[in-house]
Amino acid sequence: MTETTTTTPAQRGPSDHAIRTQIVEAATKHFSLYGYEKTTVSDLAKAIGFSKAYIYKFYDSKQAIGEVICANCLTAIVKAVDEAVAGVPSAADRLRRMFRALVEESVRLFFQDRKLYAIAAAAAAERWPPVKAYEVHVRQLVLQIVREGRESGEFERKTPLDEATSAIYLTMRPFFDPLLLQHNLDLAEEAPALLSSLILRSLAP
Amino acid sequence: MTETTTTTPAQRGPSDHAIRTQIVEAATKHFSLYGYEKTTVSDLAKAIGFSKAYIYKFYDSKQAIGEVICANCLTAIVKAVDEAVAGVPSAADRLRRMFRALVEESVRLFFQDRKLYAIAAAAAAERWPPVKAYEVHVRQLVLQIVREGRESGEFERKTPLDEATSAIYLTMRPFFDPLLLQHNLDLAEEAPALLSSLILRSLAP
Repeated sequence: MTETTTTTPAQRGPSDHAIRTQIVEAATKHFSLYGYEKTTVSDLAKAIGFSKAYIYKFYDSKQAIGEVICANCLTAIVKAVDEAVAGVPSAADRLRRMFRALVEESVRLFFQDRKLYAIAAAAAAERWPPVKAYEVHVRQLVLQIVREGRESGEFERKTPLDEATSAIYLTMRPFFDPLLLQHNLDLAEEAPALLSSLILRSLAP
Repeated sequence: MTETTTTTPAQRGPSDHAIRTQIVEAATKHFSLYGYEKTTVSDLAKAIGFSKAYIYKFYDSKQAIGEVICANCLTAIVKAVDEAVAGVPSAADRLRRMFRALVEESVRLFFQDRKLYAIAAAAAAERWPPVKAYEVHVRQLVLQIVREGRESGEFERKTPLDEATSAIYLTMRPFFDPLLLQHNLDLAEEAPALLSSLILRSLAP
């Protein structure tokens, strides 16, 4: 009873939103210390000082919490990429900057903090919804840059747009997908420039 | 004493070469059942019916045995690639065939048998000598095809040969390096064709 009393939101208690944020923040910290795979919702509840049932009022499962952490992380990457290409007039430069920002942010978020790698890896391996949405978004960004480059005359127009986009996406993927990037960290500096140049040669009119 | 007597080669016993082959074959089987990482030389000795000291007469370490298994496997891939490009007149076709054979053989040897993945992964992660030699060889094959395509006028000549080679090698690598390929198996069918086309567009004069 004591537990329920202290953990059930009081009438003047924090909003649902604040509690969700609290759970996600505590979970992020806990996962980073003990690993996402090994942590159960019971462990999380104990660490936060909530009852397990209380956490389940806000999140259906551990994965549901992981998905929020993962989505926050992927949103940060997309934001960095959008900022890197904003206002850049040449499609070729946008492609270079997009690739570089994608890799830099992925390295920073997944590996330098080391905080989010375990979740990112689970998300990528199990194809969680935020990962699918993110991949669609990155692919869409590539398509948009290629299309604009074609319209401005910077890029060739013979190859079907969809084919060119898929091939470019596949070329970039080993450097932003966390499962692949973990084996490519020593190339994260040089690969984006080298591969951007190859991609741009393939797009030459 | 009994053990030494039964395991030391008799004067008319099998040749060193035959014993080495026997150790490697038994080790391949044992690793595939129990995993490379988890197996010790003692386990191997027990499984083969040799003394540990006797195995050490032929191989310095578990890794030395793993390296032979790994080298045999990589030699088989190189052979398949060489056969795939032999006598093909166009450099573009040679590049396509090389890429496809490289991926098909890697999938077959590392994953379909599942026999060799654990060793291949350890070899790739720890950069064993046969892996380094193999990577140099594959890179050399790419360089040779690009150079010949330049000489015959099929490919452009502006990009430094070394830069073009490195970028092409990097594009292919996620589909033949076992650590990367494990996450790319669902793309192993379509990626070589799609990426070969992108590479060939980048090589257009």
